[in-house]
Amino acid sequence: MKEIMTLIRRHQVPATKKAFEDAGFPALTIQSVEGRGKQGGIGGWAAEIDPELNYMLSKEMADDTKFNWIPKRMLTIVVQDDQVEEVVDVIIKANQTGHMGDGKIFVLPLKEVIRVRTGEIGSEAVI
Amino acid sequence: MKEIMTLIRRHQVPATKKAFEDAGFPALTIQSVEGRGKQGGIGGWAAEIDPELNYMLSKEMADDTKFNWIPKRMLTIVVQDDQVEEVVDVIIKANQTGHMGDGKIFVLPLKEVIRVRTGEIGSEAVI
Amino acid sequence: MKEIMTLIRRHQVPATKKAFEDAGFPALTIQSVEGRGKQGGIGGWAAEIDPELNYMLSKEMADDTKFNWIPKRMLTIVVQDDQVEEVVDVIIKANQTGHMGDGKIFVLPLKEVIRVRTGEIGSEAVI
Repeated sequence: MKEIMTLIRRHQVPATKKAFEDAGFPALTIQSVEGRGKQGGIGGWAAEIDPELNYMLSKEMADDTKFNWIPKRMLTIVVQDDQVEEVVDVIIKANQTGHMGDGKIFVLPLKEVIRVRTGEIGSEAVI
Repeated sequence: MKEIMTLIRRHQVPATKKAFEDAGFPALTIQSVEGRGKQGGIGGWAAEIDPELNYMLSKEMADDTKFNWIPKRMLTIVVQDDQVEEVVDVIIKANQTGHMGDGKIFVLPLKEVIRVRTGEIGSEAVI
Repeated sequence: MKEIMTLIRRHQVPATKKAFEDAGFPALTIQSVEGRGKQGGIGGWAAEIDPELNYMLSKEMADDTKFNWIPKRMLTIVVQDDQVEEVVDVIIKANQTGHMGDGKIFVLPLKEVIRVRTGEIGSEAVI
């Protein structure tokens, strides 16, 4: 089992969610994060600044912002080992524009997954 | 050392926190996330929709919501290898209702833990 | 490749970000979390309580708070294996005060990193 985390543009969330559904992966988790890439938030990401979210992240951070923290969405999906390649392809197809800020995908090892409702573990608990 | 992440219902946070304390695990981290399981957010989770949080996650996501993103809480706790089973039991006992939406538990490997205040590493840094 | 996650004080974010930049690590991700350490949020952390953020985490949690959930920032940075020690040093130097609440650093293994824009994988996709 692997945990796949991807940082994508906010407005790509609906298309990405649909792409997961179409590919048979309905279960996922989403979080609001702020990110900066190797360009330090300059360039392609600059138009995406969200003063409201920056405000929500509290004042000390807004003061720090100077247009270089970019609101992003982090999606997390847990899959079997042999599904990693397919999920990576789904994410790339739904998010690749060729411009800075398309995002990153991280694949992490998972030791165990447990479904709280049934106590099922391992593959049975993934979806 | 392992990192245990669990996605649970929001209103189960106080009971879960108390269960951790009672079991001798006071240290944990909490985040707000939105999730959907294999039911795609339909069914048992539907009553938990939180328009306010959806709003906070910004408009593009609220538009996308259509009652299928469910606000959840993600708790993260770091433990020694031989404490994993106990912590999983604590989470299940505090959160298992038998209904859809009870949540998931993920166990991730950890290479290292460092306490910033003292520079302690490894087991000494895991509370 | 490793994923380094660190939980630090909110007001240390600007100094930590600058320390990363000065050390040549411009890319990072930030999230708002609430944490409690082995002191259960009592003591050194008490002055950091943020009623506004507690409110944002919704009412059921504010009711539960009683001054023991502390708002923290979680920074995530992905590096090559041979950069872990340097990044840990950067975090400690920017955040060590010797008081409770200085934070923690977690080093997690990473199986793969993919840049969405180019499809690059592995070391080429880190930064």
